[in-house]
Amino acid sequence: MTASPGSKSLPPVIVQKYGGTSVATPERIRHVAQRVLDTQRSGHSVVVVVSAMSGVTDSLIKLADQVSQTPTHREMDVLLATGEQTTIALTAMAINALGGKAVSLTGAQAGIITNGSHTSAKIANLSPRQIRKHLSDGLICIVAGFQGQTLHGRITTLGRGGSDLTAIAIAAALKAKNCEICTDVDGVYTCDPRIVPTARKIDEITYEEMLEMASSGSKVMQSRSVEFAKKFNVPFEVRSSFNTNRGTIVKEETPGLENVVLRGVSVERNQAKVTIPKVPDTPGAASRIFTALAEAGVVVDVIVQNASSSGTTDISFTLNRDELEKIGHTLDSVVKEIGAAPLVRKDGIAKLSVVGIGMRSHSGVAARLFEALGQGGINIQMISTSEIKIAVIIDEDKIVEAANLAHEAFGLANA
Amino acid sequence: MTASPGSKSLPPVIVQKYGGTSVATPERIRHVAQRVLDTQRSGHSVVVVVSAMSGVTDSLIKLADQVSQTPTHREMDVLLATGEQTTIALTAMAINALGGKAVSLTGAQAGIITNGSHTSAKIANLSPRQIRKHLSDGLICIVAGFQGQTLHGRITTLGRGGSDLTAIAIAAALKAKNCEICTDVDGVYTCDPRIVPTARKIDEITYEEMLEMASSGSKVMQSRSVEFAKKFNVPFEVRSSFNTNRGTIVKEETPGLENVVLRGVSVERNQAKVTIPKVPDTPGAASRIFTALAEAGVVVDVIVQNASSSGTTDISFTLNRDELEKIGHTLDSVVKEIGAAPLVRKDGIAKLSVVGIGMRSHSGVAARLFEALGQGGINIQMISTSEIKIAVIIDEDKIVEAANLAHEAFGLANA
Repeated sequence: MTASPGSKSLPPVIVQKYGGTSVATPERIRHVAQRVLDTQRSGHSVVVVVSAMSGVTDSLIKLADQVSQTPTHREMDVLLATGEQTTIALTAMAINALGGKAVSLTGAQAGIITNGSHTSAKIANLSPRQIRKHLSDGLICIVAGFQGQTLHGRITTLGRGGSDLTAIAIAAALKAKNCEICTDVDGVYTCDPRIVPTARKIDEITYEEMLEMASSGSKVMQSRSVEFAKKFNVPFEVRSSFNTNRGTIVKEETPGLENVVLRGVSVERNQAKVTIPKVPDTPGAASRIFTALAEAGVVVDVIVQNASSSGTTDISFTLNRDELEKIGHTLDSVVKEIGAAPLVRKDGIAKLSVVGIGMRSHSGVAARLFEALGQGGINIQMISTSEIKIAVIIDEDKIVEAANLAHEAFGLANA
Repeated sequence: MTASPGSKSLPPVIVQKYGGTSVATPERIRHVAQRVLDTQRSGHSVVVVVSAMSGVTDSLIKLADQVSQTPTHREMDVLLATGEQTTIALTAMAINALGGKAVSLTGAQAGIITNGSHTSAKIANLSPRQIRKHLSDGLICIVAGFQGQTLHGRITTLGRGGSDLTAIAIAAALKAKNCEICTDVDGVYTCDPRIVPTARKIDEITYEEMLEMASSGSKVMQSRSVEFAKKFNVPFEVRSSFNTNRGTIVKEETPGLENVVLRGVSVERNQAKVTIPKVPDTPGAASRIFTALAEAGVVVDVIVQNASSSGTTDISFTLNRDELEKIGHTLDSVVKEIGAAPLVRKDGIAKLSVVGIGMRSHSGVAARLFEALGQGGINIQMISTSEIKIAVIIDEDKIVEAANLAHEAFGLANA
């Protein structure tokens, strides 16, 4: 019996994703090419996922603006897909120029099938037959991130964070040994080092923690990509494109990971707060408020409503400061109709979140946080908690001090 | 019996091709969009073939140069194909913005199958199923010129003049009513109007004449595209993108077209001449010379060898002045080996060609041309003829005078 090509055993597969800043110039592309070759020569099959060179997508959007105020999403995808297609060709050329053997594949050629939601398509299926064939021929595959095609052959793009999705989907389909998200930071930190100088790179973090960090201002990756990896249980490593240091491995929860009470502190500036006082404590009042906001396209973050006293309650929510003006007079009529007091807006606030799955099994985390902030004389305006996160809203001008106090209180600098 | 979708009768199809200068800016793309819509609204199904915005292809080549000295042709095609893909998306958007309904198609999506010769692929097949479906839905199809894919799904490009090829192939497959090559000139002229002020736009011209004009310096279209149209008998019209004047129709020979003795005069400047005197009149001498030139990649134009006298002959050939330096010492050893005299180079010459299928049935064309040039005191250095063309090599500083004399001698200004 002879082995079929499909069953040929490959060297272990590594998927590497390089974002726009990592391939921003021909020089950086040559640098990426060398890294990729080194990875192959260390005994691996390599699939590389690349984004558009940084700036290219914006230029394309600007061009579209000049021909149409409301470009159709279908055509926007055809246009934007050229960005990654340019990078795959250049990256493959650069590897070939260094004596390697690489082949480029568009999303469609790589077998990435999506649904038909142009500009924000979801990966529906990935048939890695073509990639596997090239790998078994000893080639390095350079795949265009962020894009795919529908079953009818229409070009689609995956929306924000799309190249990470591509890399994770390919790693899942190929049962890759490693999936490396190579970016312009060294990994995920216990806090932003520009805010907390003693912040430390985290070696391992769970998907859930990474999700809470992402939704709390640590913008290393889009939540969507982390959720996707969690769903298909694809561990991945966030690491730098510019050095060879180990990064942060994001993976499913293990008993060892639970021993650390807190994984990190994340900070979101430029927040604003809206309070609607004296909302009658009747069913449907809150619903009417947030339905009106959703219809106006306002993205709300933390929502807090206290237990009712004397038949009315205050409802507060936070949002990005840029969203504040979107509210306009959206709520005026609703507030009147439900009989609440006029709303109060306030900007100049920030959100501090502490995140860790250890929180589940270690009590007293909230107490320790509030104590630390209290000793620093920092007033907490709102509190919101999830199973593995405590978020507090404070004045923005206290955020640096608060982050350092929290970081120190939980001993994150020397975990 | 109900009609199948394929048999639904469409309004007559017009294929329009717009080159790089016609879509060079968002403003020009909007202009093209309006023209295309006007064409549809006059009762036609419209397929538009577009090139890359002018300058884009050169920028992409420059990028490739920065990552590789010898980019693989496969990757060059992936890279260059992004140029047209950008234009199709923008053009479709612009038409939609004007209230039309357009859909973009890459070469692959349009069903253009080529052989595997990357960067100079040949169209092997065109399956217009997708285009026809969109047309029957009332959509305008915007197709990326210059590109296709192999049967294995690899992206290919067609090389120089490729977008014209795409347009002609689509017109053939759809049995289009008209195929319009929209460009930055008003059509084919009896001579370059910058040289002969009385030059006149030609209404109709045969493929053969167009081919001879193209190979004689009238660079409206690549010979390759004209040959392709001739092979599949697709009449087409060369016309301006910037006005609605009728252009020049290029089609197969008809009796009416033969009544005109001469169709036009074309001029090629910047030529050079090489003469190898005293070549022994033995078999294989000429072959050795031109084999050596071909191996050095030198493109030779006119070759003249006179009847032998006294056992030796002079061989002369012309070439573009830029090619002259490529010769270098290529011929030195050959000339020595065959026992000829050292070669003589001369630049500052030009080629004047008179073209017309009427030449076949009207004698005395050569005589009339030579007489006209002789009366102007213009010395003819070389003569070369084909069935429908007479070309003469003269000093470059006489070329304007010569073109005007020839144009007048054959009454081209008022045909």
